[in-house]
Amino acid sequence: MLLEKTLSKITALDQEAMAMARQRVDRLIKPPGSLGKLEELAVRMAGITGNPRPVMGDSAVIVMAGDHGVCEEGVSVAPSEITYQMLHAFVGGVAGIGVLSRLTGARLVVVDVGVACPVDIPGVISKKVRAGTGNIARGPAMSRDEAVAAVEVGIQVAIEQINSGIRVLALGDMGIGNTTPSSAILSVLAGISPEEATGRGTMVNDDVLSNKTSAVAGAIKVNQPDPSDGLDVLAKVGGLEIAGLAGVVLGAAAGRVPVIIDGFITTAAAMIAVAIKPEAKEFIIPSHLSGEQGHRLMLEHLGIEPMLHLSMRLGEGTGAVLAIQLMEAATKIANEMASFDEAGVSDLDEDKIAK
Amino acid sequence: MLLEKTLSKITALDQEAMAMARQRVDRLIKPPGSLGKLEELAVRMAGITGNPRPVMGDSAVIVMAGDHGVCEEGVSVAPSEITYQMLHAFVGGVAGIGVLSRLTGARLVVVDVGVACPVDIPGVISKKVRAGTGNIARGPAMSRDEAVAAVEVGIQVAIEQINSGIRVLALGDMGIGNTTPSSAILSVLAGISPEEATGRGTMVNDDVLSNKTSAVAGAIKVNQPDPSDGLDVLAKVGGLEIAGLAGVVLGAAAGRVPVIIDGFITTAAAMIAVAIKPEAKEFIIPSHLSGEQGHRLMLEHLGIEPMLHLSMRLGEGTGAVLAIQLMEAATKIANEMASFDEAGVSDLDEDKIAK
Repeated sequence: MLLEKTLSKITALDQEAMAMARQRVDRLIKPPGSLGKLEELAVRMAGITGNPRPVMGDSAVIVMAGDHGVCEEGVSVAPSEITYQMLHAFVGGVAGIGVLSRLTGARLVVVDVGVACPVDIPGVISKKVRAGTGNIARGPAMSRDEAVAAVEVGIQVAIEQINSGIRVLALGDMGIGNTTPSSAILSVLAGISPEEATGRGTMVNDDVLSNKTSAVAGAIKVNQPDPSDGLDVLAKVGGLEIAGLAGVVLGAAAGRVPVIIDGFITTAAAMIAVAIKPEAKEFIIPSHLSGEQGHRLMLEHLGIEPMLHLSMRLGEGTGAVLAIQLMEAATKIANEMASFDEAGVSDLDEDKIAK
Repeated sequence: MLLEKTLSKITALDQEAMAMARQRVDRLIKPPGSLGKLEELAVRMAGITGNPRPVMGDSAVIVMAGDHGVCEEGVSVAPSEITYQMLHAFVGGVAGIGVLSRLTGARLVVVDVGVACPVDIPGVISKKVRAGTGNIARGPAMSRDEAVAAVEVGIQVAIEQINSGIRVLALGDMGIGNTTPSSAILSVLAGISPEEATGRGTMVNDDVLSNKTSAVAGAIKVNQPDPSDGLDVLAKVGGLEIAGLAGVVLGAAAGRVPVIIDGFITTAAAMIAVAIKPEAKEFIIPSHLSGEQGHRLMLEHLGIEPMLHLSMRLGEGTGAVLAIQLMEAATKIANEMASFDEAGVSDLDEDKIAK
């Protein structure tokens, strides 16, 4: 019910606000287009919010955590217990995202949507749908009902944040083993081979990489996910935190709030959200290009160009929050720069500009 | 005298501080290397400052302004008077760098080192060496003594800023026509053809591009700059603001302060600085990849990878200041993240990590 209602609220960007924003940006004291993606961001923010002079609001990064049954295939260098241990580090402010959310002014929201063990940590929002996924190499990650429930967790969290005044959402993930289902999602939705879609994650060696690739190939063979049905892909080869993050994308789009993706896992979640509701794509803001090999293929599939090239591959939302200042830069450019007329600066010679 | 004294102060990075910083960064709760360039930045900051736990200090962006005699060859879409007009916009805070320096907390320092007309604008530092360069397509930009004087202006400004407490310098440029001398510098110092080195700047059309390429080729033919002598290249085919910015790089390196380059013009200045004193290279921090075609070639020549891909090509330091938060992120990661031991997080399985 919540999912259906949310999907029905997702509509196209406001073309009139975008045209007005573009007109303003083109008159500012700079060569046309010379602020590149900042100009595009300002125009997109106008389309998302309906305000031709968009302003930057408060931001929150939502870190969804879940465990993965596929870890029993030997796909990771890290023991599954780290998913739980990192939740302590998140709320304690000493993990990467704790440091970078403080720096960038983003509220850090940590959600247990599918951690394997019981979680009772003050500050972690408890929304567990089930205790870890099934092993996708042998069967489905979860049932379709569980997938819908986990997506709705994300929608609920997004709505709660927006209702509390947040106007920019960023995505983060925590889940040992979660590059494996993300590779499976990439393979199915973009129609590329498991070998191309599977990378080294936290720099696994050749043996572990081979296990991962086999697990991805096995997951697709055993489960036969339907690429035209985003929920089917999610339930069969996805993850609980990936489902929750897909829900945040949908909730953000329905609430007309931009949502910043991070790296490989959150972009897999964005692919699921777009497979469920293509119009959601326009609300997605890129941040960095992950060091994980398949991330570039995901972004190309979505038609999105990353802004930051930092060779990061940590997850947690660490790349996403670094895009917050770039969004703020975009809105401030549009609002605070003077036009040629206002500043009394001579016009450029239009005849000499390449069209 | 000031130049010689400054060059003698530029020494290698502190290897011991870097090794200690690397050791700390490798123990933090994340897969090794997973924060990519942020980790490298933290280690580099340790090497520059000598502090194994480097902290971020106050920053300033130094915008050097100068005019270019080569404009009479029809190399730009913008009339030269815009160089002067933009100085008003800079100190008024309504130009791109005004907006972005406010956002990023950088002090904006505007210097007239070679504007063609008299400049008497409160807030603009007056250090004019001469009123615009000669037309490089017909003769030298300036004399060698003038080049040294303009470099020393940059050194002086850098020293003044460092003495006033600034610990990070960023470079910005203003000078209608200055992509032409920058292309000439690239062509001479990297040994590539004028055609490859010359781009569309503020999106000039084919006719103007042809004028630019001819001017670059002519400048090199007429002046015969010596690629092994940075000051010779600067004097013959450079610019006054480019000289000033090269001086800021040298002054920063001598003062052991990191210096962030911006786009095509400031990177040409960095190439001059490195040609004069190769050890200065280690103090240069990249920011964005400019939309100007030759910028990638410059960065490759210097062996530097940009962090931001925003298709910007405005100059003024607008890309450079956007790297300030990334540097702050790097230092905070190194200082505020917990180690595996401190956080009680299980170790990764070293046997499974690719070496």
